[in-house]
Amino acid sequence: MKFGIIGAGRIGKIHGGNVAARKDCVVAFVADADAGAATSLAQSTGARVGTVEQIFAASEVDAVAICSPTDTHADLIERAARARKAIFCEKPIDLSADRVRKCLDVVEAAGATLMIGFNRRFDHNFASLQARMADGLIGELEMVSITSRDPGPPPISYIARSGGLFRDMMIHDFDMARFLLGEEPVAISAMGSALVDKAIGEAGDVDTAVVIMETKSGKVAQISNSRRAAYGYDQRIEAHGSKGMIRADNIRETSVEFAGAQGFVTDKALDFFLERYASAYRDELAAFVSAVTKGEKPRPDGEDGFQAIRLADAAYLSWKTKKRVAID
Amino acid sequence: MKFGIIGAGRIGKIHGGNVAARKDCVVAFVADADAGAATSLAQSTGARVGTVEQIFAASEVDAVAICSPTDTHADLIERAARARKAIFCEKPIDLSADRVRKCLDVVEAAGATLMIGFNRRFDHNFASLQARMADGLIGELEMVSITSRDPGPPPISYIARSGGLFRDMMIHDFDMARFLLGEEPVAISAMGSALVDKAIGEAGDVDTAVVIMETKSGKVAQISNSRRAAYGYDQRIEAHGSKGMIRADNIRETSVEFAGAQGFVTDKALDFFLERYASAYRDELAAFVSAVTKGEKPRPDGEDGFQAIRLADAAYLSWKTKKRVAID
Amino acid sequence: MKFGIIGAGRIGKIHGGNVAARKDCVVAFVADADAGAATSLAQSTGARVGTVEQIFAASEVDAVAICSPTDTHADLIERAARARKAIFCEKPIDLSADRVRKCLDVVEAAGATLMIGFNRRFDHNFASLQARMADGLIGELEMVSITSRDPGPPPISYIARSGGLFRDMMIHDFDMARFLLGEEPVAISAMGSALVDKAIGEAGDVDTAVVIMETKSGKVAQISNSRRAAYGYDQRIEAHGSKGMIRADNIRETSVEFAGAQGFVTDKALDFFLERYASAYRDELAAFVSAVTKGEKPRPDGEDGFQAIRLADAAYLSWKTKKRVAID
Amino acid sequence: MKFGIIGAGRIGKIHGGNVAARKDCVVAFVADADAGAATSLAQSTGARVGTVEQIFAASEVDAVAICSPTDTHADLIERAARARKAIFCEKPIDLSADRVRKCLDVVEAAGATLMIGFNRRFDHNFASLQARMADGLIGELEMVSITSRDPGPPPISYIARSGGLFRDMMIHDFDMARFLLGEEPVAISAMGSALVDKAIGEAGDVDTAVVIMETKSGKVAQISNSRRAAYGYDQRIEAHGSKGMIRADNIRETSVEFAGAQGFVTDKALDFFLERYASAYRDELAAFVSAVTKGEKPRPDGEDGFQAIRLADAAYLSWKTKKRVAID
Repeated sequence: MKFGIIGAGRIGKIHGGNVAARKDCVVAFVADADAGAATSLAQSTGARVGTVEQIFAASEVDAVAICSPTDTHADLIERAARARKAIFCEKPIDLSADRVRKCLDVVEAAGATLMIGFNRRFDHNFASLQARMADGLIGELEMVSITSRDPGPPPISYIARSGGLFRDMMIHDFDMARFLLGEEPVAISAMGSALVDKAIGEAGDVDTAVVIMETKSGKVAQISNSRRAAYGYDQRIEAHGSKGMIRADNIRETSVEFAGAQGFVTDKALDFFLERYASAYRDELAAFVSAVTKGEKPRPDGEDGFQAIRLADAAYLSWKTKKRVAID
Repeated sequence: MKFGIIGAGRIGKIHGGNVAARKDCVVAFVADADAGAATSLAQSTGARVGTVEQIFAASEVDAVAICSPTDTHADLIERAARARKAIFCEKPIDLSADRVRKCLDVVEAAGATLMIGFNRRFDHNFASLQARMADGLIGELEMVSITSRDPGPPPISYIARSGGLFRDMMIHDFDMARFLLGEEPVAISAMGSALVDKAIGEAGDVDTAVVIMETKSGKVAQISNSRRAAYGYDQRIEAHGSKGMIRADNIRETSVEFAGAQGFVTDKALDFFLERYASAYRDELAAFVSAVTKGEKPRPDGEDGFQAIRLADAAYLSWKTKKRVAID
Repeated sequence: MKFGIIGAGRIGKIHGGNVAARKDCVVAFVADADAGAATSLAQSTGARVGTVEQIFAASEVDAVAICSPTDTHADLIERAARARKAIFCEKPIDLSADRVRKCLDVVEAAGATLMIGFNRRFDHNFASLQARMADGLIGELEMVSITSRDPGPPPISYIARSGGLFRDMMIHDFDMARFLLGEEPVAISAMGSALVDKAIGEAGDVDTAVVIMETKSGKVAQISNSRRAAYGYDQRIEAHGSKGMIRADNIRETSVEFAGAQGFVTDKALDFFLERYASAYRDELAAFVSAVTKGEKPRPDGEDGFQAIRLADAAYLSWKTKKRVAID
Repeated sequence: MKFGIIGAGRIGKIHGGNVAARKDCVVAFVADADAGAATSLAQSTGARVGTVEQIFAASEVDAVAICSPTDTHADLIERAARARKAIFCEKPIDLSADRVRKCLDVVEAAGATLMIGFNRRFDHNFASLQARMADGLIGELEMVSITSRDPGPPPISYIARSGGLFRDMMIHDFDMARFLLGEEPVAISAMGSALVDKAIGEAGDVDTAVVIMETKSGKVAQISNSRRAAYGYDQRIEAHGSKGMIRADNIRETSVEFAGAQGFVTDKALDFFLERYASAYRDELAAFVSAVTKGEKPRPDGEDGFQAIRLADAAYLSWKTKKRVAID
């Protein structure tokens, strides 16, 4: 399977590297507005540098991995769909749910395969947690609780064009909540503020937020997010059901523990997503390749991407208007 | 210090027994509408059975512990205050915040000492957590997360007169949130449903609920409650600040762990409040005795009781009206 | 049940206090060569100061708790047995196994009840571990591993008259090993040195030691001891069987955990035996009172005391002679 | 760097695969008496099938990985040394310490580079533990405790030619003890029996064993081994020093925990060495390649292999003769 990698930044390097490491895949082209970045990734993956146009036009290219800035995603997805490429696109599809809907219409009309990069579903811990729930381990699900805290805030320049915490960061948790709930939330209420960095507040965003949601059948979910965690990248899930609780804890740097005069000390959590989700990115790619190869519909798909951005929009609206928001 | 114990039920027995076990205290009287219960507790504590009137009239009685049903609390507090007794009263003071306010006015006018039984503040784990926060261990507080799950639901008959989950159960968590936040919440949003027992829903109550709150300075709090936990009485606190996280975990029955074909298995959490908070009840009493003896104002006081019921009311209103509720 | 407490030092205070706190027991007399210590304990327990002779002569005294220095134990046990008192004696009975054997002959001839204070059997964690093993949880037992580390070394003056680490400290672990193995060790090998304090080595003792033992059926046990542990009083047990492992971990001061830039930090282990085994001492006394009341033979008994000192002797011999020692 | 892989069994596949996955290495030849195994590994690594003679004769081959049965190791090492290849050899070099010494003399005379596959030194948890000790985290080392338990026993046919538990299994722990102690043991005492499978005992071996060792300066070590662990591959290290304890725990299959009526359940330990030490094998190879490339002496080297087999021999002797054994 031959890939075109569009975008050679941090996440493009991950996906490009993972494609190149697979025996059944090849990176054919790398495209990036930054020629240096494109060349560097092309060299390390044994690919050629190309333009987006070249990639879509190349008949040997089976699939594209869209790793470019968010505001290019929807357009690139549409072009890739029309070019009959299988499409893997980083989240989010777009910051506007309307734009996402239109994009998905194009994808559907073209009969294209589209998978969205909600990598956490492929973390083997979270995937195992979800599978055990699906097997009935905790009985009927009642409550989901998700904690996500970044080790530190991104640059303000990133904040400004990110769509804000709800659409940029919590969108992962919205997808995870949906993945676990197995049912769509019908209402949401959000609270948040800028406690980590005032500049984030001045940019119209929050860095600390909590959200609650409920589904039609009465299941509830809570999400907490922060752009700061002194102890590493905090990624935890907890679910409660009629027969008990299931949770997935953080991953520490090592299993080493020191005990001294200050007590028992274990390592910090793995520092950030590249490290924490390294194998999740590989498994995500494997799922995409497998689905494309077998002609199956991959998940998370465009609809998952749409629902996640809708929840993020509703959370933002709830925060902004200081009101509970119904999701129709 | 001589006590009159009013109410010889489950919680009256705890407080009566703890008073009797102290070298500096005596149970002088036990009063209860149920003569058998009163006699039983009086015998085990070396006290006399008396009426409420006798207790208030007895000049040798220094203090009363009000452990009777909630709807008698406010009236008994007022009478005790006028009788110049130091007053320890179980939570809540009343299910009506207005009634609580009036009661506190009487207490204030009488210059009486009043302490409310939010026992969790005296759990040595939670007390230590709060003390370390106060010492600045986690820097500036940003977020509080509280999980409380009962091992199983109470009888429907109890539910009916309890004031509902928010006023009966989550009131402890509201007090804990205030204890940790060090600042009053200004808004609250609640979601909940009856997933454990439909009869609870039919009684107009919920058994599963999540709440978020925020303070004027932007701190946020989340609380989750359930009337069901297969693994014991779930009582956890987590707080995040600029320098890190602090949390207090459940207490297991023993420190024993078994490892076999199913994995590593540790004990359930201590089953319920009598066992989980046995030493907290003793330390709570010690704080009351110490405050009365030294002529100091005990905490949590009537105002803490008032603020907790206000938050519970607001949570109930939010749940009932499906709206975020501002707290003025 | 009326007790005479012989010895009003650290451990005498524990047992005296625990006797006094029981509703079915009374401390009748306290005896100690140090009049001040005796008076102090007598006052706090509502007892009279008396001589050892008075205690043995007093017909109302049912039982004695021997808490005096080790070199007085065997003689006091014999006198108490002849005086027909039920006897609780702190470990060890004597530093000489021969002397212990003679003492037990006197006890047997007198038909006296004797219980030895191996308190750890009554720690509810260890007791639960043993009970689960007895219930077959781990199948056929194969290996026992015991770790005991004191937070710090005792004064050299204590070391000199203690009988040394094997007889003073590891004797608890020998009793625990026998308690868990359910079979007598037939061989032992010990290694040790003075690494914590050279003065301990100069006094002819070790402060760091490891021992292995095997039983006739081939079960093996390992014990490690140290007079130093920066992280508190380290008291752990682990047992392996055909169906798995069971272990009991240390008890921390609180359940509080802090997570910051240095990682995740939990509290030190409870600092020393008075704190760690506070409830074990109460349960030990309860077992003694129950056995005496019911006319049953208490455990651990004199034979347990004898076997433990034999193992300690063998360990000492193994260390001293640098040879494996067979236990006949 | 071009490798010849000698032996295409379980461990040969690991090393062959890891060599092939490196960008700076190539598998040139695979040799195995079993042509099918050789062909299979050659195909998956892009190598040619060759004979041992061909590998030694091929001038383009820089290094060999000796993954054949133990009784061929010493001979192959000597031939490789004379052929001026860099040598990576699986442990043990030989079951006879004398044979190992002779082999090492040949290696030395040839000036060859030899690294022995004690993979556990390269586990990032254990490596980190050792590094922190070397940095002084626990102060002066006093005691090392190592637990190794296989999930289940190997076939009796393997036992028979393995050299027995001490030389086949515990040899890893002897190397680890030396790695951590930083000093040679001067005495050893071993106990063991066949509790898992009587046939192992009939084959003259043990499946359950404990060992203690001491060094000249008085440091002590304990090792426990078993061929059975219901809860997975048990691989733990604990070290104590003047400033505290450091330990490395098992690695679980996932971070998922279930809490239900039976308590809190976490996953089993990773099942066996291929899975548990997958990254250790990669890091081990990286260390070998780096040393060869830089012309440095790799560790663990032949001398480490010799010392480990000496300790294993001494342990066997101690067990067999029921005596403590001095190591000169």
